[in-house]
Amino acid sequence: MQVKERIAKLREAMGKSGLDGYLVPTADFHESEYVGAHFKARAWLSGFQGSAGTLLVEKESARLWTDGRYFIAAAQQLEGSGIELMRMGEEGVPTLEEYLEKSLPQGGALGFDGRVVNANLGEKLMRILRKKEGRLETQGDLVDEVWKDRPPLSARAAYFLEEKYAGESRVSKLARLREQMAAKGATAHVLTSLDDIAWLMNLRGDDVEYNPVVLSYALITPASAILYANRVVFSEYMVRDLERDGVTLRPYDRIYQDLKALGSEDKVLLDKGRVNYAICRTLEKVGALIDEMNPTTQMKAVKNPVELDNLRRSHLKDGVAFTHFMYWLKTQVGKMPITELSASDYLEARRREQEDFVELSFGTIAGYGEHGALMHYAATPESDAALRPEGMLLVDSGAQYMDGTTDITRTMALGPLSDEQKLHFTTVLRSMLNLMSAKFLYGCTGLSLDILARGPIWDLDLDYKCGTGHGVGFLLNVHEGPQGFRWRARPDRSEGAILEEGMVTTNEPGIYLEGRYGIRTENEMICRKGEKNEYGQFMYFEPLTYAPIDLDAVEPALLSEREKRVLNDYHAMVFDKLSPFMQGEELEWLRHYTRAI
Amino acid sequence: MQVKERIAKLREAMGKSGLDGYLVPTADFHESEYVGAHFKARAWLSGFQGSAGTLLVEKESARLWTDGRYFIAAAQQLEGSGIELMRMGEEGVPTLEEYLEKSLPQGGALGFDGRVVNANLGEKLMRILRKKEGRLETQGDLVDEVWKDRPPLSARAAYFLEEKYAGESRVSKLARLREQMAAKGATAHVLTSLDDIAWLMNLRGDDVEYNPVVLSYALITPASAILYANRVVFSEYMVRDLERDGVTLRPYDRIYQDLKALGSEDKVLLDKGRVNYAICRTLEKVGALIDEMNPTTQMKAVKNPVELDNLRRSHLKDGVAFTHFMYWLKTQVGKMPITELSASDYLEARRREQEDFVELSFGTIAGYGEHGALMHYAATPESDAALRPEGMLLVDSGAQYMDGTTDITRTMALGPLSDEQKLHFTTVLRSMLNLMSAKFLYGCTGLSLDILARGPIWDLDLDYKCGTGHGVGFLLNVHEGPQGFRWRARPDRSEGAILEEGMVTTNEPGIYLEGRYGIRTENEMICRKGEKNEYGQFMYFEPLTYAPIDLDAVEPALLSEREKRVLNDYHAMVFDKLSPFMQGEELEWLRHYTRAI
Repeated sequence: MQVKERIAKLREAMGKSGLDGYLVPTADFHESEYVGAHFKARAWLSGFQGSAGTLLVEKESARLWTDGRYFIAAAQQLEGSGIELMRMGEEGVPTLEEYLEKSLPQGGALGFDGRVVNANLGEKLMRILRKKEGRLETQGDLVDEVWKDRPPLSARAAYFLEEKYAGESRVSKLARLREQMAAKGATAHVLTSLDDIAWLMNLRGDDVEYNPVVLSYALITPASAILYANRVVFSEYMVRDLERDGVTLRPYDRIYQDLKALGSEDKVLLDKGRVNYAICRTLEKVGALIDEMNPTTQMKAVKNPVELDNLRRSHLKDGVAFTHFMYWLKTQVGKMPITELSASDYLEARRREQEDFVELSFGTIAGYGEHGALMHYAATPESDAALRPEGMLLVDSGAQYMDGTTDITRTMALGPLSDEQKLHFTTVLRSMLNLMSAKFLYGCTGLSLDILARGPIWDLDLDYKCGTGHGVGFLLNVHEGPQGFRWRARPDRSEGAILEEGMVTTNEPGIYLEGRYGIRTENEMICRKGEKNEYGQFMYFEPLTYAPIDLDAVEPALLSEREKRVLNDYHAMVFDKLSPFMQGEELEWLRHYTRAI
Repeated sequence: MQVKERIAKLREAMGKSGLDGYLVPTADFHESEYVGAHFKARAWLSGFQGSAGTLLVEKESARLWTDGRYFIAAAQQLEGSGIELMRMGEEGVPTLEEYLEKSLPQGGALGFDGRVVNANLGEKLMRILRKKEGRLETQGDLVDEVWKDRPPLSARAAYFLEEKYAGESRVSKLARLREQMAAKGATAHVLTSLDDIAWLMNLRGDDVEYNPVVLSYALITPASAILYANRVVFSEYMVRDLERDGVTLRPYDRIYQDLKALGSEDKVLLDKGRVNYAICRTLEKVGALIDEMNPTTQMKAVKNPVELDNLRRSHLKDGVAFTHFMYWLKTQVGKMPITELSASDYLEARRREQEDFVELSFGTIAGYGEHGALMHYAATPESDAALRPEGMLLVDSGAQYMDGTTDITRTMALGPLSDEQKLHFTTVLRSMLNLMSAKFLYGCTGLSLDILARGPIWDLDLDYKCGTGHGVGFLLNVHEGPQGFRWRARPDRSEGAILEEGMVTTNEPGIYLEGRYGIRTENEMICRKGEKNEYGQFMYFEPLTYAPIDLDAVEPALLSEREKRVLNDYHAMVFDKLSPFMQGEELEWLRHYTRAI
């Protein structure tokens, strides 16, 4: 069935429901960054495969909004579909809300599945419809009627994360969460973000690619904790253990009905930015909504000592795997056929050899030459470039282990580099080292520190159009809040979070020259307490990523004495950590590539 | 009359008005940083001379709240007064509001002059009294009845700042202000901060020491502009010129009556943080209050090209004066008697020789040895230290010229320094140079840049307990918002301001070791536009302060190559600017002290 037919079928269904427009965003019921196959309705309907985009089907036309990352791909993939591409952020292109405000007829009707639209957006759309004295239809999913072979909801087996990995029981986590609910005066807490629930329940699964989470909702009160999920993914002992710990299991969909039972005496804590519109609609009769960041978001960002020790272990394994890969790549390129995809496969195989490997933590980005300049590049069989002994290969990759999540980027010289390439590589390195070696007073946010990384790149009149770093989960999502490194406050993100002891954050400045090359060097770092004195509590970062930074691409004359010291200390530590796992020529190679310069 | 008698008299007046407590803060009617003699009621009543403090007199007791800068001085000055010192911020010490909440009896009465209490504080106190079903008495000033020889309100002659200095007419400024009022939907704008009014009206005066302002209020509507001030300070031609430009002069006090005439159809723009409580009370019947930063605060912070050229001229004169002083100090110390006060006098005399000198822009801080560690030190005849050819003298000073306001700090070695002193001096220098040489994308606030200055000092486990820099007025207050350099967001300050082209900000990191020494190096800087490209508009700073930084205190081995380059470039520029004004031995001295290292 072609895109045009699919859209025509959807229009038929819209006609039966009397709808003037139907909205299909890219989302699951949980505001997840990545979504499972069941939720890829927008891609199925429109033919556009990018990870972000919103389709609006109207009676006579269809439009797809997406952002700058995807303008080129979307234009190609939408060709001949009759769907108009709306380039978000370009001058003269209305936002979805602006467009609907003009396009919808007075008294018109707009439909969408309230479970896949964020609460804040849903409320905005509701206000538009009210102005037009129209109707918002948010029950059920019209796509279901059209998409006959739609993959079912994922129902992969769930498992518990043992305390030797998690470092804290779910009983203890629930108690801490209830303390915070009490402090805020909440009588109930609705939690629907999958990583928050997984962390709180010490529960993991496989319902979203790269994110070891279980499709679920949770409702916590001072006296009860209800987990809404598909019963079949739990073994008998798991259900018993949950009950023992005061957690009741109920069917996945049942939450909507249960929430309707809350009343005017209830004060419900939830994060509207992380909850879908249908959830919010069920709460219209409650006494008060306390719209704040989920307490678990802050709690899970601060890793406990057991998690930190596990993370050091998983990063050691990951560093061994990456270094095997780097040795192979640097010594074999030009001697055997290697492509972006085969290099990615080789790296994945080295990770799979490691103990307690679970899966990758995101799709590997292996960009050779000009592909390195595309920040979200994913090689396809069509784009797959053959590696030659020249230029640079950027590899951003990571894995999920039972003892933690990793995320590392190295850019490697595959042959001699130009002076400009070395200047850019060395500048990115200086940026990374400056942030990694920061000492700062407790109370700093990522906003105050970002310029340490960005400054050397700004000095060249260059910039990277993204944050410098993000929080990382523990056997959970590779991107998690609330902390991060950014140079500009964004009201829609909570980057105001103070850097706390035990937070794990990436440090990944880069230089991206379109059509030429891209360079990124990324270490994860643990925030640690340093000296405390009359001025306050000083903090510093412990590097958590152990892998060589390609010295072939470094111009030592561009490093200050301090920067050289930080680099040499880092490389000495990397050699200490990795050398027990290396032998023969590979060991000598490691010694050479971690030498002091 | 002693403090005890004065307080007793105040209690008598309180008794007649049936008051349980009377509040005397340190403020004028305009929320000014410095206040005139008429407004020093708290100092007169309590005997405490510090610049910040709030006195609360109750029937049986009296208490004075002040901050850490003044704990030692206040304890001494309050001795025997019967007034209890409340050390703000110390553990277990209630705030004024917390104290009043406990101390005031149910149904009690609290009094203060509503004109000297900030609107936000006044509203908090009103809520406390409401809870107690008590009474707030804010009309008139009981101190007036007690303080028989109180200095009258200042009424020094006002003058206009010509357009060759201001670069923009008041007609143009009023038009721009009205545009902003219209954009915010305001039908009236109440402006009571003296520097805002002075800037808007191109008006200057001498009613507050160091701040060339005129005691005044302003009420702006789309069709009228009323200036409330003492008629006697204006000449005939000034009144005519104001009228020609659409500005009506009315008596100073008259504003309270005029504001009461505003009604439900009026939307009044004002900044509650800069307006007194009595003003706010008169506006209780208006349709809406738009509580935002005064538009003129942002407008006056962005200096126009004429102001910038004038500022470069005034800073050149100021640099010449300071360099004369520095040459004299460095060559004469140990050969003739010099003290902190006589050094300050010598420096002031050099400034007075300069063309268009008006007055100092703040009280000179000249702290020798351990006095340098006191950030707000002001030498008195009792404390005045004799300078010896050893240790360091910190001098923070500035002047008002017709063509601008200056603020400069230099710390000078008066003899050989220890390695630690050189380390600290060089670190402060590196901090200042790092911020001065920053390149950054438009959109940065001072919050994002602060760590460039603070980082090198944090690396030593040290800190300075203040911001790194503040905005500076044009022949106006030496401290002005909205921009600044700070490392931590403070909700009570608007340091969120983006650094705009034409803003002038100080850069003054320091190290202060109690009982030992203090080091601060301060340059003013103009924010300028640099290259604009696909990444955005790059910005940089132009140094506006021209004076040598004492190379005797610098350890060159501690500077990176980049830092040396920035220092040498700065000193070369200083020599170019100042050398035409120096001769003979002084010229050679300048050449030596601005040499490349």
